Amino acid sequence: MAELDKTKMSAQRRKVYDLVEATWFKNAIMGVIIFNAIALGLSTSDYMTHRIGGLLSFLDNAVLTIFVGELLLKFYAYRMSFFRSAWNIFDLAVVGLGLLPSQEGLSALRGLRVIRAMRLLSVVPQMRSVVQALLDALPGMGAVIVMISIVFYVFGVMATLMYGNSFDEWFGTLGRSLYSLFQIMTLESWSMGIVRPVMIEYPSAWAFFVPFIVVTAFSVLNLFIGLLVNTMQGAVEDDTEAEFENLRKLVRDETDSVDKNVLALMQEVRALREELHASRDKGGN
Amino acid sequence: MAELDKTKMSAQRRKVYDLVEATWFKNAIMGVIIFNAIALGLSTSDYMTHRIGGLLSFLDNAVLTIFVGELLLKFYAYRMSFFRSAWNIFDLAVVGLGLLPSQEGLSALRGLRVIRAMRLLSVVPQMRSVVQALLDALPGMGAVIVMISIVFYVFGVMATLMYGNSFDEWFGTLGRSLYSLFQIMTLESWSMGIVRPVMIEYPSAWAFFVPFIVVTAFSVLNLFIGLLVNTMQGAVEDDTEAEFENLRKLVRDETDSVDKNVLALMQEVRALREELHASRDKGGN
Amino acid sequence: MAELDKTKMSAQRRKVYDLVEATWFKNAIMGVIIFNAIALGLSTSDYMTHRIGGLLSFLDNAVLTIFVGELLLKFYAYRMSFFRSAWNIFDLAVVGLGLLPSQEGLSALRGLRVIRAMRLLSVVPQMRSVVQALLDALPGMGAVIVMISIVFYVFGVMATLMYGNSFDEWFGTLGRSLYSLFQIMTLESWSMGIVRPVMIEYPSAWAFFVPFIVVTAFSVLNLFIGLLVNTMQGAVEDDTEAEFENLRKLVRDETDSVDKNVLALMQEVRALREELHASRDKGGN
Amino acid sequence: MAELDKTKMSAQRRKVYDLVEATWFKNAIMGVIIFNAIALGLSTSDYMTHRIGGLLSFLDNAVLTIFVGELLLKFYAYRMSFFRSAWNIFDLAVVGLGLLPSQEGLSALRGLRVIRAMRLLSVVPQMRSVVQALLDALPGMGAVIVMISIVFYVFGVMATLMYGNSFDEWFGTLGRSLYSLFQIMTLESWSMGIVRPVMIEYPSAWAFFVPFIVVTAFSVLNLFIGLLVNTMQGAVEDDTEAEFENLRKLVRDETDSVDKNVLALMQEVRALREELHASRDKGGN
Repeated sequence: MAELDKTKMSAQRRKVYDLVEATWFKNAIMGVIIFNAIALGLSTSDYMTHRIGGLLSFLDNAVLTIFVGELLLKFYAYRMSFFRSAWNIFDLAVVGLGLLPSQEGLSALRGLRVIRAMRLLSVVPQMRSVVQALLDALPGMGAVIVMISIVFYVFGVMATLMYGNSFDEWFGTLGRSLYSLFQIMTLESWSMGIVRPVMIEYPSAWAFFVPFIVVTAFSVLNLFIGLLVNTMQGAVEDDTEAEFENLRKLVRDETDSVDKNVLALMQEVRALREELHASRDKGGN
Repeated sequence: MAELDKTKMSAQRRKVYDLVEATWFKNAIMGVIIFNAIALGLSTSDYMTHRIGGLLSFLDNAVLTIFVGELLLKFYAYRMSFFRSAWNIFDLAVVGLGLLPSQEGLSALRGLRVIRAMRLLSVVPQMRSVVQALLDALPGMGAVIVMISIVFYVFGVMATLMYGNSFDEWFGTLGRSLYSLFQIMTLESWSMGIVRPVMIEYPSAWAFFVPFIVVTAFSVLNLFIGLLVNTMQGAVEDDTEAEFENLRKLVRDETDSVDKNVLALMQEVRALREELHASRDKGGN
Repeated sequence: MAELDKTKMSAQRRKVYDLVEATWFKNAIMGVIIFNAIALGLSTSDYMTHRIGGLLSFLDNAVLTIFVGELLLKFYAYRMSFFRSAWNIFDLAVVGLGLLPSQEGLSALRGLRVIRAMRLLSVVPQMRSVVQALLDALPGMGAVIVMISIVFYVFGVMATLMYGNSFDEWFGTLGRSLYSLFQIMTLESWSMGIVRPVMIEYPSAWAFFVPFIVVTAFSVLNLFIGLLVNTMQGAVEDDTEAEFENLRKLVRDETDSVDKNVLALMQEVRALREELHASRDKGGN
Repeated sequence: MAELDKTKMSAQRRKVYDLVEATWFKNAIMGVIIFNAIALGLSTSDYMTHRIGGLLSFLDNAVLTIFVGELLLKFYAYRMSFFRSAWNIFDLAVVGLGLLPSQEGLSALRGLRVIRAMRLLSVVPQMRSVVQALLDALPGMGAVIVMISIVFYVFGVMATLMYGNSFDEWFGTLGRSLYSLFQIMTLESWSMGIVRPVMIEYPSAWAFFVPFIVVTAFSVLNLFIGLLVNTMQGAVEDDTEAEFENLRKLVRDETDSVDKNVLALMQEVRALREELHASRDKGGN
């Protein structure tokens, strides 16, 4: 996070700012996250829940309180620039999930609390740069992703219209078709599980699914190649850029050294000419 | 599309030409395509078809009319050069599919109408360049694709002759064999689904299928590597080409600067010699 | 195939040599191969076999006769250098397969005849270079392939000893284990089909199979990366090699041009010195 | 292994050192390893075990004795530097496994003996460098592997909490969830085998599993790209480094040659000036 202008802060705010930026504070939060992750892991065990379920539940609430406090302090220190960092928004969303009223029956919401362990990705700098690198790759893939989406949509609508009546489970609605097409794109049981059964009723269904597989495989391949070429180009460029800079400097230095000698020679010749003028003038006298 | 020579057009044709080339016209068509895609998406829902099926059907026909009109205008404006652009032919084919007589029972043909949404790929310039990039990659892959086809044909005929009688569903005809081999190439259920059952009757069937998998995997890998190297080479070449041009200019400039000094020195020496000649001639007089 | 020294041949042998090297002869053979491939394709159809089975069988024998004749002519023309080309040996093996006594019941041998269509790969020059490129890649992969083989062997023996008794079909013999491990390496039904059933009896079987998957996936990945880096390196090297050669020439030319000027200047100065000597000698007289 | 200072060794220790470093000794050990591998392969066959089981068992013990002896000799020769080489530790662990008390019933431990054949990887230099290359790639992948681990842990805990009760076999404990997620990451039967059954009870389970597949696929892809770019960069760098060095030398040589001529010219001009001084001084006398 970009340093804020501390001179404009009130004394108290500056104190809070120094606190949340302190290394020991960050490490403590990281420790709490890891501790929380382990506690959540233990809570998956029936045996542990039976024995120390109350303790685990209490610890979970304690950790949640710490996280809420941490975010409040950060918000107090950064004010609105808090929202400039995507990592803060990520932390806010992840912690916010834990504040939702969790009814006993909703195990799904209980499960969501563990997403808090993902804060490790936002707190450890090395993890942040890995995630950043993954996200940086996304814009370059934009056009291909839109194209794959169009292909999915078109094939999804077609599959629903053509096979939806006979194979309701797989192609009954647009949503089911898209899911089935995603499964087919990953090549999971595409033939034995889906296309062969469909072909029993529609013998030419292969003419729909095989091109879909080829087109999506080819698109994903291109996505990958684009990503790879971008990364590689950046890496190679930095290297050769330095080499070329090096070489340019050498060319400049070497020719400058020759030039210096030529200029010294020039001075010599001019001095010679001066002397001749002088001696001629003297001789002419 | 390459600009046509507008001076040779009649006044009316020029007006139509300006219309179909106008940005607002293209955007309007894009809007119609997206609207059509959404409407077709809605028509996959039984609920929507029940409620507003008549409206959707009417809208579909209206859109089709608009597309036909657009293509007629384009054809009037470009005449025969209309067919020079592969994108126009794509549009024509896609719209033409919607004009086929669609009997109620033929849901397949109903489904084909949604291919019209693919026109997004031909209308949005960014999509066009992505598709173009994909198609540009094809010629370089020609020889490997032909090779894979020969391998498929040979293994397909062999599988049909060897296993066709016992496993009619998978290898009964050449077509079924090719489909099954495609499935095996994608590694989908190749062993548990196909080869293990075949091996019960023909214990050495693995000696047919395992080499097939290795050969096709290796060929596809080479296809991919070829594609990647081509793309990468192009990208890297452009970069280093500029660097080298840069360096060549520097070498030329630096040596020219030295050369200029040497030539100035030459002039100095020649002037000196002139003067000596002159003084000698004078002295000799 | 390297040209042989035709002057040492007898007149008749030279005539045969010119024949088998003639373009029309090669094209004719290619035609026969394609014709044979189509005929073999037709013979997979029960309908065609029923109608024109005798004709197809006769044509197959005719084609075989032509191939045998072609190879005999080539052998007569090239003598022992016939065996220097791997393509000739490939042709010989492929044609030889068709000469094996084919009992009616052995449909496997019937199927092998179609391998003859693979001769297209050896006869069309473009195909030859694609296959050559694939084969050229092999030596660079040697060490990794040996490593994967050792890993397969060790895991194969272990699987047979550990799971062979309980799962005879999958791991009963070393051969069956190797086949099952190959299936697991391709990730086909590895968990649902093999490892989960095994885990019912041996709960820690995952500790055997998951590392196997990770190790082989990682090795295959490295195989692929090695292949890719080699190909890329070659391609990039050729490009930059030319650029560097270009640049080296420029540096040499530019400095030579400066040098030429410096040397001309040297001559000028020396001429000046000559003249001074001369005038001084004259003046001294 | 780095050479030790032999001068400081006792005579006997030096003799042992020379022995274990001798080529014939290494080859002999390699021969024993291969022989052992073949013997262990034979022991997978019931027929062979029945016929020559006693012999195989005896040979196995003999080989084990040889290996223990070899390691003791090495340890005597290298002392504590024995443990500096990871290969020695690998050998020690692999041989040590064979010394564990193997009860008749524990076929698992019997199987572990064959890991000894893996010593081929540590004994053959080419294999060592392949394995080394694989291991060298690991550190660069560290951050991504940690990230994937966090993702696995978080999704594993969530899956256990959300689906554990209903699908005990797949998500009953954290361990089972991690195994199932690994299976899903490899795309094996993820949809037909796992997610579709789960969706019958939890219809929105796709919103958990599809993002998991996309995130892990994307991470593994990045792992691979990072690995590839590193390898490629290294390879390309070495090549161009040499080319640049080459070019730098050329620039230096060429300009030095110009410089030499300029300096020679300088001497000539100075000599000329000397002469003029001299002649003027003489003339002035």
